[in-house]
Formats: sequence, C-alpha cells, structure tokens
Amino acid sequence: MNRLAIRAAIHVAAVFAMYLSGAMLIPAAMDLYFSNSDWQVFAFSALVMGGGSTAVMLATRGASPQPNTRFGFLLVNLLWLTLALAGAVPFMMSSLEMSLTDAVFESVSGITTTGSTVINGLDQAPPGIIMWRSLLSFMGGLGVIALGLFLLPFLNIGGVSYFRIESSDIADRPFERFQTFALSLIGIYTMLVSVCAISYAAAGMPGFHAINHAMTTVATGGFSTHDTSFLRYSDNLAILWTSSIFMLIGGLPFSVMILFAVRGRYDAIRDPQIRVYICYAIAFAIGVAIYLRATHEISFFDALTHSTFNLISIITTTGFASDDYLLWGPFAVACIYTATFLGGCSGSTTGGIKAYRFLILYQLLANGVRRLIYPNMVLPVRYGDRTIDQDMQRAVILFMASFFVLWAIITVLLGATGLDFLSASSGALASLTNVGPGLSAQIGPMGNYADVPDAAKWICSAAMLLGRLEILSVLVIFSPVFWRN
Amino acid sequence: MNRLAIRAAIHVAAVFAMYLSGAMLIPAAMDLYFSNSDWQVFAFSALVMGGGSTAVMLATRGASPQPNTRFGFLLVNLLWLTLALAGAVPFMMSSLEMSLTDAVFESVSGITTTGSTVINGLDQAPPGIIMWRSLLSFMGGLGVIALGLFLLPFLNIGGVSYFRIESSDIADRPFERFQTFALSLIGIYTMLVSVCAISYAAAGMPGFHAINHAMTTVATGGFSTHDTSFLRYSDNLAILWTSSIFMLIGGLPFSVMILFAVRGRYDAIRDPQIRVYICYAIAFAIGVAIYLRATHEISFFDALTHSTFNLISIITTTGFASDDYLLWGPFAVACIYTATFLGGCSGSTTGGIKAYRFLILYQLLANGVRRLIYPNMVLPVRYGDRTIDQDMQRAVILFMASFFVLWAIITVLLGATGLDFLSASSGALASLTNVGPGLSAQIGPMGNYADVPDAAKWICSAAMLLGRLEILSVLVIFSPVFWRN
Repeated sequence: MNRLAIRAAIHVAAVFAMYLSGAMLIPAAMDLYFSNSDWQVFAFSALVMGGGSTAVMLATRGASPQPNTRFGFLLVNLLWLTLALAGAVPFMMSSLEMSLTDAVFESVSGITTTGSTVINGLDQAPPGIIMWRSLLSFMGGLGVIALGLFLLPFLNIGGVSYFRIESSDIADRPFERFQTFALSLIGIYTMLVSVCAISYAAAGMPGFHAINHAMTTVATGGFSTHDTSFLRYSDNLAILWTSSIFMLIGGLPFSVMILFAVRGRYDAIRDPQIRVYICYAIAFAIGVAIYLRATHEISFFDALTHSTFNLISIITTTGFASDDYLLWGPFAVACIYTATFLGGCSGSTTGGIKAYRFLILYQLLANGVRRLIYPNMVLPVRYGDRTIDQDMQRAVILFMASFFVLWAIITVLLGATGLDFLSASSGALASLTNVGPGLSAQIGPMGNYADVPDAAKWICSAAMLLGRLEILSVLVIFSPVFWRN
Repeated sequence: MNRLAIRAAIHVAAVFAMYLSGAMLIPAAMDLYFSNSDWQVFAFSALVMGGGSTAVMLATRGASPQPNTRFGFLLVNLLWLTLALAGAVPFMMSSLEMSLTDAVFESVSGITTTGSTVINGLDQAPPGIIMWRSLLSFMGGLGVIALGLFLLPFLNIGGVSYFRIESSDIADRPFERFQTFALSLIGIYTMLVSVCAISYAAAGMPGFHAINHAMTTVATGGFSTHDTSFLRYSDNLAILWTSSIFMLIGGLPFSVMILFAVRGRYDAIRDPQIRVYICYAIAFAIGVAIYLRATHEISFFDALTHSTFNLISIITTTGFASDDYLLWGPFAVACIYTATFLGGCSGSTTGGIKAYRFLILYQLLANGVRRLIYPNMVLPVRYGDRTIDQDMQRAVILFMASFFVLWAIITVLLGATGLDFLSASSGALASLTNVGPGLSAQIGPMGNYADVPDAAKWICSAAMLLGRLEILSVLVIFSPVFWRN
C-alpha cells in the first residue's frame, strides 16, 4: 500500500464527510421548525464537521492514484468508518446525551441500514434526532446500492447484477455511463421514498412519521419513530401492505430498476435472482400465514397481512415488526430465524446472504453431488443465460464460509460480555445480516439494544459494518499481503 | 443403477444384519445372568432376525458387481438403514414396550453413536437393554471408522487420513493390506474399550457401568447407564479424567493409531488434523475453566476437570455431561454451542465438521482473501506435506454448504412439530453432528428426547443418519442421475 493511495482514500472520505455535514442542516431545520433547541446541536455539528472535513479534503488534494483493487478496498472501509463516526456526533451532543458507545452504535446501525436502536423513548425524542436516524438510513441505503453496483463487482465480490449493465451498456464509454446511472439511481431511490411517504400518509400515518418511515422502509433500514415499531399500526392493514410492498421493492436490484425505468429494458426483469427472491418471500409469507390461521383466532387475511409484513421485513433485512412475532409459536419463529439469513437481491439495500448466492450455491451443490457419481462430468454454473466463472464461484463460497465462522466467533464474544445465549446467537446473526432485531425478548422485535453491555454494543457495531461491506472487503484489510508495498 | 448392484448391496447388508443378530446373544446372556426375563426377547430377536437375514443373504447370492462409486453409495446407505431398523427390534419387544418411533430413534442414536435417548428411568432398566444400547454404539463406532478409512475416500468424500496409508503402504497389494488393517482396527478398538473399562472400574465405577460406559466412551457415543449421565460421578475426578482421555483418543484418526501401533510409524502422529483437534480441545477446555473459576465458587482444578470433561464430550460429539452446563453462564454456553460444530479427526468415531475440514477451509479463506488483492496469484491448499486437489476442496465446500442448509431446514421442520425454537435449532444441530444433547432444558445435558413429539423423533433420526454418513453420501441417493441406468 503506497502513501499516494492512502492520501487519495482519505481525500474521498473527507468529501463524503462534507456531504454528511451538509445533510445535518435538514434535522437542524426540522428542530428549528418544531422550536426544539436541539437545532443548535445540528447546526454546530454541521459547522465543525463541515470545516474539519473541508480542511482534510484540501490538505489531501493531489494526483489520483492508479485505480486498483487495493485502493478500492481501502476506500470502502475508510468511507463507511468515517461516515459511521461522523454520523455519531449529533447523537452525542443532542439533548439525549448519549454515550460514545451508544452514539456510535446508533450511527453504525443507521448507516448500515440495520435498524437496531439503543434509544428508549423514541416517541418523545426530539424530531431532529429522529430525522437524523432516518437520514443516516436513507444515505446508507443509497451508499450500499452504489457500492454494490459500481464498486464491489470490480473487487470480485458480489454484485452479479452489475455485469448485466456492463456487458451491454458500459463497455464503450464507461465514465459517461456511470454518471447517467448514478443520477438515475438517486432519482429512482428518492422517488420511491416520496411515493412511499405519500402512501403512508394516505393510509393514515401522520406526516412526520410517514416521511421518516418511508426513508427507512425503502432503505430496508428498519429505524422506527416508535419504541414498539409498527405495533401501533397493527390494525391499519393499508399501512402494513404499503410497507410490505416498498420493503419488497427495496430488496430488488436497482440496476434492473434503472434499466427498466430509464431504458425501458423490460427483459432486465428476467434477472434470475428476482425470481428466487420473490419465490422465497411468498413461500415464507404464505407458510406462516397458514400456520397463524391454524393456531390462532384470526381471519386468513389478517394472518396473511401480518405474516407478509413481518416476514418481508426480516427477509429484506429491514427489521420492522407489527407484533411480537416471538409469541407466534415455534414454526413461525423457526421460519423467522431462517428468513434472517436470506436477504434480497444483489445491488439492493438488503443485507444477509442474498438470493443470487443461493442460486449459485444450489447449482454448486447439485453439480457436486452429480460429480460424486461421475467424477469426470463437466458441469457449468449458470446464472440466467450466462456462465458464472471460477472467481465468482469462489467469492460466493468465501462469503458463506466467513459468514458462518464469524457468526460463531461473534456469538462467543457476545456471550463473554454476559449476554444470554439466545440474545448472543441471534444478536450476532441479526447484526451480521443487518436485520436488527434478534430472537430473545431483550433484543427482539419489541425490545432494543439499550440495556445490552457496552462491550456487546461495540461488537455488534463491528458486526454490522462487516455485514454491510459483505465481510470479505473488511477481511482483506487484515491480510498482511494488503499492506505490503 | 443396475439390478446386479442392488442385489449385491442387499446381500452385504444381510450379512451385517446376521452379525447384528449374533451380537444380540450378548444382552441375552447378560439378562440370563441377572435373572431378567428379557433374555427371551433377545434370544427370540436373534433367532428371527438371524434366520431372516440368512434367508435374504442366501437368496441374494451371486456374482459380485463391478465395484464403482454408485455401488459404494448404495451400500453405505442400505447398510446403516438396515442396521438401524434391525437394532430397533429388541427395544420394541423388551419389557420397556417402546413404540416403533422410540425404538427406531434409540437404535439410530446408538448405531450413529449420537447418544440421544428417549428412555426415562435408565437406572431401573433391564441390564440387557442397557447392554444392547452400548453394543449398538460400540458397533456403530467401529463401522464408522471402517467407513471413514476404507470407503468414503474412494467416494471422494472426507477421509483425508486414508491417503496417508494408501500412498505408502497399500498401492502394491491392496486387499491383503486391507485385511491387516481391518484386523488391527478391531484389535486396537477393542483394546481401548477394555483399558477404558478397567480404568473406570479402578477409579471406582461399578463393573457393569464401567463396561457399558467404556463402550460408549471410545465410540464417542454418549449413551449413559444413568438418566443424569455422569452427574453422579461429578465428585470423582479420576472417573472424569479417565473419560476425558478416552473420549479424546476416540476423536483421533484410527489410521494413525494403526500405523503407530502396528508399524511403529511415529511420523504418522504428525498428521496436521491431530494438531488442530488437540489445539481447539485444549483452548476451549482452558477458556471455559478460567471463566468458571472467575464466575463460580470453585477451585481451578475442579473447574478444569469439569470444563475439560464436558467440552471434550461435546467436541468429540460424545454427549456425556457431569453437570447441567447450561447453567454455567452465557460465555460457557456460547463455547459449548460453538464446540458442537467441531468434531474430531477424519477416520475417528466423531461426527461434526471435523478438524481437517477446518484446516482446508482456513487455507481456502486465506488464499481467497489474498486472491482478492492479487487475482492471478496461484496458491495451493496444503495438508501437511501434500497438496489438496480440487476434488477434495470441492468435497469440503459441498459438505459445509449442505450442512448449514440442512440445519436450517431441519430446524424449521422441528419447529413445525411444535418443538420450541431453542430445542428445534439446537436439537437439529446436535442430531446432525451426532453430539446428542441440545441447548434447552428439555433436550439438554440433564434432559432427554422422551417427551419430544413423534414427528420430531423421526426427523432427528433422519438427521442423525445424514450426519453419520457425512451428508453427501445420502444426498447422492436423491439425485436422479444416481438411479439412471
């Protein structure tokens, strides 16, 4: 790793920290409008952080380094770390007087669109802080889509969907195309949030809550404006269905949406991961609905509404809840547990393992079993009409292996902090997949991470970042080879 | 799959069922000696099963098929299924009057050396039944070592240790060598059980219990003669250390023991998986001992004794317990949970993922991360002084992937039977790894599977067989390619 690359990475991170400082003016305006004195906190944060990051940006100007994979990995890690720390500043300085640990946890949870919270009393919290959480989620969602579309595929990690754009559209004039795609992405993403907010409001959600929830719905973040998440809307089926639809959309590959919206490329919809994702979402929702209808005094439509909302919330790694689903019975809990692993599509805001990895893994398994019988059989791994190369197969396997090893390690570490086993195991999983709520009463759908030991909060923060950056991008940094000149 | 192969596989299974009928005379003699009328059950079972299997054996005589991998897979599945069902007969007919479900569960648990039980009141059960359980474990252990040494490596699944014998010793006169190795194996295995029984007795365990426990210790089975496992010996540190040592030996590769004992090949001990296995066993035992010393009123030596006994019991997939370790605190429980995955060496009686897979997986991960930085780097996967070929790497990955997918599926299925989530998840894991006890009070170290729903017992039985046959051997049977002519 040479100095030039490190300097350039710091430069880019400073530019994004500047954008983040600018974004702080939104909650400042919000608090000012609601006559909450916290507006000064945001204005001050924006000033200090904006000044600081501008200074760093200017100090690190210079020639661009040769773009290579090492620079890419360095940049990704530095960027998310900077934004996570910068995002924590308003939490520490606000009237909530959060500790450093809590502020960083909340900021990481936002920027990684996990949606775990350490704040008790969200309903009484200053509107600026609520808005700041939603904004972090909103920006985190946008950032991770950009990461999945434009950067990770170059680093040979994830992002199967990108190739679809590349092969047909980008090859000739890459940078011009990039700009078009980036602008389309921001346009589509913002439009989705707006339509979602209007739908929420039309369904009866108060305006402020509609806007905040819309931002964390499309970002599949899961921050709510209420301590009990969507429990207070549990009788408003229109709100639950609206939310289900926009969470589901948030799990779709934005590359496909861009091609679809900008170019009218209807064929893009045939991306195989979409089929897999929609299929398992429907299967889980209907399965649990039938179980709920059979075991509870509830109409099938009510059962289907709640089952769809909560299962899609988990599958898309959002983390909203309309009910304490831990009380739904063992089959439902086991389904929710399994759903925690799934995730949506590559190039979406969701975390977890994701549909395209299951698709590739299934073929690797089926081929492998066939090869046990006929060792000399040559069997390609296909993704739609393309063949998946060795590098891609290896990346999928590496991700899965490191995912399960890390899950075990994080569970043991959380256990060491004194967290009970179910909280430790499910908290580790829910952090690593960016889902948020775990499977114990304490950190479950109706609980939060407020009373978790400080050490556990740091461990979960690290797990959320690891999960958000698809694990491997972070592990690379810890390889001695990475730092060699 | 041709008729010749099916006939031949049935023939071999019948031969082994005949051996099993012969083994029934041991508990018959035992019951006769203790004047228990159950001796008639065993004598009758032996007669009927012996007659039946002899008839099948004679009816299926004929030319041997061309040995190939499909025949190998068919044979392995048929053999374990036959022995599991045949082993269930005495349980159904004895004075315990077990249902078909319970009898099959207990028999599968024995033959797969899992050690889960559905019998309440073991301390009052007829001695013949106790002995039959131990014998099933004993034979299951011997069978799985033979499988791992002589068959699985040919099927390209597991058994890394075998190559070490093959390359240097077998290549020239394979069948003559096989016989020598098989006889050495039986000799060493039986000798280990005898020494273990004598050590138990010398440490103060009554003779009958010493013999039974010795059989299930070396087989890393975990069937105990008491409802509360080793709790009644929790003050007898000599018994706990004896058990720890023989469980640890049971987790070693028997190929190495054979080479060591028969040929004096001291270099065999350098098998890298042994180092990995011993290292993680020591690390977990000491880690939990320190935690116990720090959190409980207990001397370090007592803490180390109980920690070593229970952790080695889990790591070697035995399943004995000297205490209700679920009450040891979250860090200990998280460690025990993680230990459930580990297992011992290839070619041992242990289940789980096993040390050599971790060794290969670690290198795949480290190489993969390096290749993310330098995509054109060529990095071999090494096992000691050899290079692991692509087929072996693929088998390890296939095993891991199918292991985690099956774990999730079995958890959901167990949840559907009404088992609470923690029992479902940990029961699925403990069955698939052949450990036995789960992490809930019901099926934990001081509980058993007696009150689990019938459907769950069948699911766990299937999981135990899947785990015992290294998953892939069973999955092959479900591939349409397998049955094509």
